[in-house]
Amino acid sequence: MNESDLSALRRRYEDIKSKHYALDLTRGKPGKPQLDLSMGMLDVVKNSADCSAEDGLDCRNYGLLDGLPEAKRLFSDLLSIPAENILVAGNSSLNLMYDCIIRAMQFGVYGSERPWGKEKSVKFLCPVPGYDRHFAICESLGIEMISVPMTAEGPDMDTVERLVSSDPAVKGIWCVPKYSNPSGITYSDEVVRRFASLRPAAPDFRIFWDNAYAVHDFYPENKAQLLDIFSEAKKLGPKSENMIMYFASTSKITFPGSGVAIMAASRDNLEQIKKLMFYQTIGYDKINQMRHVKYFGSADGIRRHMEEHAKLLRPKFEIVCETLERELGGKGVAEWTPPLGGYFVSLNVLPGCARRVYELCRDAGVKLTEAGATYPYHRDPDDRNLRIAPTFPNNDDLQLAMDILCLCVLLASEEAKQ
Amino acid sequence: MNESDLSALRRRYEDIKSKHYALDLTRGKPGKPQLDLSMGMLDVVKNSADCSAEDGLDCRNYGLLDGLPEAKRLFSDLLSIPAENILVAGNSSLNLMYDCIIRAMQFGVYGSERPWGKEKSVKFLCPVPGYDRHFAICESLGIEMISVPMTAEGPDMDTVERLVSSDPAVKGIWCVPKYSNPSGITYSDEVVRRFASLRPAAPDFRIFWDNAYAVHDFYPENKAQLLDIFSEAKKLGPKSENMIMYFASTSKITFPGSGVAIMAASRDNLEQIKKLMFYQTIGYDKINQMRHVKYFGSADGIRRHMEEHAKLLRPKFEIVCETLERELGGKGVAEWTPPLGGYFVSLNVLPGCARRVYELCRDAGVKLTEAGATYPYHRDPDDRNLRIAPTFPNNDDLQLAMDILCLCVLLASEEAKQ
Repeated sequence: MNESDLSALRRRYEDIKSKHYALDLTRGKPGKPQLDLSMGMLDVVKNSADCSAEDGLDCRNYGLLDGLPEAKRLFSDLLSIPAENILVAGNSSLNLMYDCIIRAMQFGVYGSERPWGKEKSVKFLCPVPGYDRHFAICESLGIEMISVPMTAEGPDMDTVERLVSSDPAVKGIWCVPKYSNPSGITYSDEVVRRFASLRPAAPDFRIFWDNAYAVHDFYPENKAQLLDIFSEAKKLGPKSENMIMYFASTSKITFPGSGVAIMAASRDNLEQIKKLMFYQTIGYDKINQMRHVKYFGSADGIRRHMEEHAKLLRPKFEIVCETLERELGGKGVAEWTPPLGGYFVSLNVLPGCARRVYELCRDAGVKLTEAGATYPYHRDPDDRNLRIAPTFPNNDDLQLAMDILCLCVLLASEEAKQ
Repeated sequence: MNESDLSALRRRYEDIKSKHYALDLTRGKPGKPQLDLSMGMLDVVKNSADCSAEDGLDCRNYGLLDGLPEAKRLFSDLLSIPAENILVAGNSSLNLMYDCIIRAMQFGVYGSERPWGKEKSVKFLCPVPGYDRHFAICESLGIEMISVPMTAEGPDMDTVERLVSSDPAVKGIWCVPKYSNPSGITYSDEVVRRFASLRPAAPDFRIFWDNAYAVHDFYPENKAQLLDIFSEAKKLGPKSENMIMYFASTSKITFPGSGVAIMAASRDNLEQIKKLMFYQTIGYDKINQMRHVKYFGSADGIRRHMEEHAKLLRPKFEIVCETLERELGGKGVAEWTPPLGGYFVSLNVLPGCARRVYELCRDAGVKLTEAGATYPYHRDPDDRNLRIAPTFPNNDDLQLAMDILCLCVLLASEEAKQ
């Protein structure tokens, strides 16, 4: 590209800027039509008979810390985890994760020699790019984060194994194993098996397995298959099983903020957690658990419901990937992988350009998640990763935002070459 | 009473035992007819327009950490606390309190010199008898509890003032200021003013003001009046206002476990809390907040609703107090104060007799809250306090349970005299 091409890009950019758009690709929020899919849930529990659980418990009253039996079974069927390993909780899996870690700081986990807060240092491995809210928890609690690169198969397991087995200060790792946030990658069977087989130096190392997109597939005929880490770990014995803290939620199945979160863990872990959780709460919202049970009826009911989400999401992700391909494909200025599910597209631009693209977009009226946000401490060492969250805007706005984003990528790349 | 009276009591007791009753006076749970009062709330939010907050926010989606504006206003009107001091949260005020304290252990509160967990020792004052779940939080976190006797006006403020002003390790006090659990006592204006005027040795001392029974009056014409501690503290300046952590919930207004909990605090406190809460959760269940807003419409709506609760609760508390008066009155074996609201009657038996009464009741098929539960570490130094929770059983069962309880008090007292 020569000087006059750069001038042409700049003219196009200035022209767009003058239109004062207000577009937003920042948040992994369902769009309104997605929310409308679950409206039937809101009045499915409305009389006292609806509130009676299968064991006779009145969901409207106090009692039961760890979730309705029928809710446990629903998630057990959905995720192929034994119901006895499941705890059904409140409205936020992030909340469950945070509470697990702050409890670990205060009390330790099952098998800890002392509370994590009494250790000289506590470190977590953070596959990058990753989820900013995971990293924020660590940062707030003074847990040192070590980045581990993601490959097309999941985290670089050579690095994970080396760090986990050599450093007893490494107490945890964050994983979004299916349709990873933001890369969309699903861990391969080999990676899952290597996770289950980890031999940590710390006796109380934990894998925070945030299966946020467990059933969030776009293509019914082409779903990523995630190996069940629990079954793999069980084969290897209780030490392996105890490493796993598994989380999921219906935040992006029904309503963000009004869904149901679950955690799954070994018997030893759950016993230790429930004993401490007793001090924190008398119990979670069982009526809302019952709403989910009654509305879906079965795991298949959830799967059918997710196909309706997929119909709404597919066109959006196609807009993103087709626009990227058309505008940037073959130009050597950006890399991305069209995801099969989840909520994000991860875009790698030329090293040193991500922040510039972010700023150009911002000034042209397109909000992106801040450059760096997908890395611990908001520091992307190569300044190249951007997270695209296309689910919330309508398709016209999305197309416009993507056109502008691509122009900004071209412009930033060209500036960098000058 | 002579030997033959004791024999007669024993015969009556053995006769009752042989009937294998299964009665329960343990838990402060609403009865089914109370739960039925709120059924209309369950389908009051059912279409997408219902989910639109007054500022246009879609309650069904992510966003908003500290509660819907209309929910804040509802509780502001109900409790006479400025809306800007209110945070509307999830389903459990116990959860909010626990989180405040574990955060304080980890990070400190506004004005802390260091996290409470880094202090040599942390102490809480515990008015006794009090709420076992408050005490359990302290015990679980290794916070030393110091009992302070309750008087008919509230906690013994001479003791409170002395301990709070002399010992910087005293970081908090638990208060249930209206219809106290279990004594039913409401703090006098004088006591509330002395609380607001405390001059703690610790710069980060906090009053945990659990106004669990704020509108839980039995007699519309004879409500206990609780002075507003916030207004009192505000007169004295920010240091005083910052001492107050105020909690309430609709657990016993709508549905325990599916209600809405609030906390109220000064701007400085709320800012510090929200900053840390951000790491814990993306937000609370706003649809459930909206259910409460729509169902009640106004604070007066809640007050009218509470009159319906009162109609159901009055007869139960009258059964308790009339039976106590009839069976034990004037015999010098027990003391109690008929409450004007709340969920409990506190019964003091002869010193050394509470555990025996508890066991006699248990063996005769009447479950009581364990003797000692109303004291830190479950240690009632005089072994005399029992908590009666009469709301859950139906009136016939309650009458029977009270008859048996009174018999057990007489029997234990008589045994003690032998």
